[in-house]
Amino acid sequence: MSEFNSSWNDGAAKRAIIDFVARVTTQGGSDFVPPAERIAVFDNDGTLWAEQPMYFQLAFILDRLKTLAPQHPEWKDQQPFKAVLEGDMKTVAASGQRGVLGLAMATHSGMTTDEFTKIVADWLATARHPEFNRPYTEIVFQPMIDLMTYLRANGFKTFIVSGGGVEFMRPWVERVYGIPPEQVVGSSGITNFQVGPDGKPVLMKEPNIEFVNDGAGKPVGINRFIGRRPIFAFGNSDGDLQMLQWTAAGAGARFMGLVHHTDVEREYAYDRQSHFGKLDEALDVAPANKWTVVDMKKDWTVIFPFEKR
Amino acid sequence: MSEFNSSWNDGAAKRAIIDFVARVTTQGGSDFVPPAERIAVFDNDGTLWAEQPMYFQLAFILDRLKTLAPQHPEWKDQQPFKAVLEGDMKTVAASGQRGVLGLAMATHSGMTTDEFTKIVADWLATARHPEFNRPYTEIVFQPMIDLMTYLRANGFKTFIVSGGGVEFMRPWVERVYGIPPEQVVGSSGITNFQVGPDGKPVLMKEPNIEFVNDGAGKPVGINRFIGRRPIFAFGNSDGDLQMLQWTAAGAGARFMGLVHHTDVEREYAYDRQSHFGKLDEALDVAPANKWTVVDMKKDWTVIFPFEKR
Repeated sequence: MSEFNSSWNDGAAKRAIIDFVARVTTQGGSDFVPPAERIAVFDNDGTLWAEQPMYFQLAFILDRLKTLAPQHPEWKDQQPFKAVLEGDMKTVAASGQRGVLGLAMATHSGMTTDEFTKIVADWLATARHPEFNRPYTEIVFQPMIDLMTYLRANGFKTFIVSGGGVEFMRPWVERVYGIPPEQVVGSSGITNFQVGPDGKPVLMKEPNIEFVNDGAGKPVGINRFIGRRPIFAFGNSDGDLQMLQWTAAGAGARFMGLVHHTDVEREYAYDRQSHFGKLDEALDVAPANKWTVVDMKKDWTVIFPFEKR
Repeated sequence: MSEFNSSWNDGAAKRAIIDFVARVTTQGGSDFVPPAERIAVFDNDGTLWAEQPMYFQLAFILDRLKTLAPQHPEWKDQQPFKAVLEGDMKTVAASGQRGVLGLAMATHSGMTTDEFTKIVADWLATARHPEFNRPYTEIVFQPMIDLMTYLRANGFKTFIVSGGGVEFMRPWVERVYGIPPEQVVGSSGITNFQVGPDGKPVLMKEPNIEFVNDGAGKPVGINRFIGRRPIFAFGNSDGDLQMLQWTAAGAGARFMGLVHHTDVEREYAYDRQSHFGKLDEALDVAPANKWTVVDMKKDWTVIFPFEKR
């Protein structure tokens, strides 16, 4: 646990994690959990990587729309496409979840799953975060990566349970977080099996939502994809509330954690008023439930991997 | 591979499996596949356990309907419920997929996921196969269990990809096959997150289909749940055809196998005309695609675990 030990400051959060891991891994102890049941789940946006000034997948969507615009002259007169092309983010935001889902569908369908994987990989190779000026896959939280490594070394199986698109995450999370594609639970669109004119079968991405893995959808996704209740869960927003409640409601020892974005200098500081990653109700209920709230500014010696270089 | 070696007779099928495993695990060889990508998928009904005289989950549904009938006097006049209660299997069969799905929904909803898991476990503990007079979880194919053990010993990750209900399989497949719940892909119904009057969150099973993981649904399920194309796939019926095609269409070395039920003495003999596990089109296309067809009678020294005792 040397890396976990060095990226987390001594304090209540680090102590709670170490205590929990010791309890569930001590053979013969009353809180012992067999390795097969050591399921740990992590939200992604705001928990494993940053989510400001906007969700990174939304930045992908906006970039894709601009790339695809020449093939879609009709977007010039159609909201919220028009607003995206004009850089009018207020109108985009005002279009609400329905508007943004429409943008997502327009950019996440009409190709095979293999083609989409390549589009994501190509974008990640060239796109840069507007403030850190680095690839998005570098704007990840080193202490959380070290925590996941520490858990895996103690027999845990780590999963991502994110509102983000599952096919947007799978191309890179193994390399960046050490989490294989089959341990990623996320939102998804409908895919359709087709045999092409060359006799080769493909999965076509259709412009329809299959599943939204957010809020009350997270326990549903955990049950559907993992089929076992986690004993350890980490989130950072109200969209993670039900995942934490579901984890907490199982028998035996449990750990529930929230990342609180408090470091305006090294990252961002936001919670109850934020458009992305709003943390309000979950922050209120955390103390009474003895959930661990991580204060990024105080608890983490380092935020991003590039700080260590 | 000692157990695999003893439950499979020497022959083309066994040789093809051993050759394939040697090729993909030989470091430096042209067919080498890194362990993380050694995904092996197995159908369940007819591939890992028997499916005659009817799918075992259908036997569960019929038993549940009889148990629940006193609370549903309306079933006496309602088809196909009436036919089930009268033991009129012809009328049940004539109600088709739509009729049987209705029976499934009536028995797989209206309770929490935890309650359903207990119902399945209790049924498996008491129900007996009508011909072998043993628990259904003993009517499993020892050579396939040995094959999965052999694959796992060679760095493969084994998954079930079945048309059966995912929540019907998860309670027992870890004990019987060594496959954990999170490596089971199957059909599912809608679940709904609710917080009960006691403040405890539950997932309620609703009477609506979420996903049918059969035929062209299998590649969709593999993509959705695993997110990586298998290099090894085993089925036994036309419902596995697209899964085998999807596996075959990837780059590099691939293994596709079919279990052919040819042993009328030790198990059953059926293929093109069978109501359950019909094997027709897949049997036709197997030779041209160099898929391995296992002849149960000739290729397996043992069929069920209890024969060894």
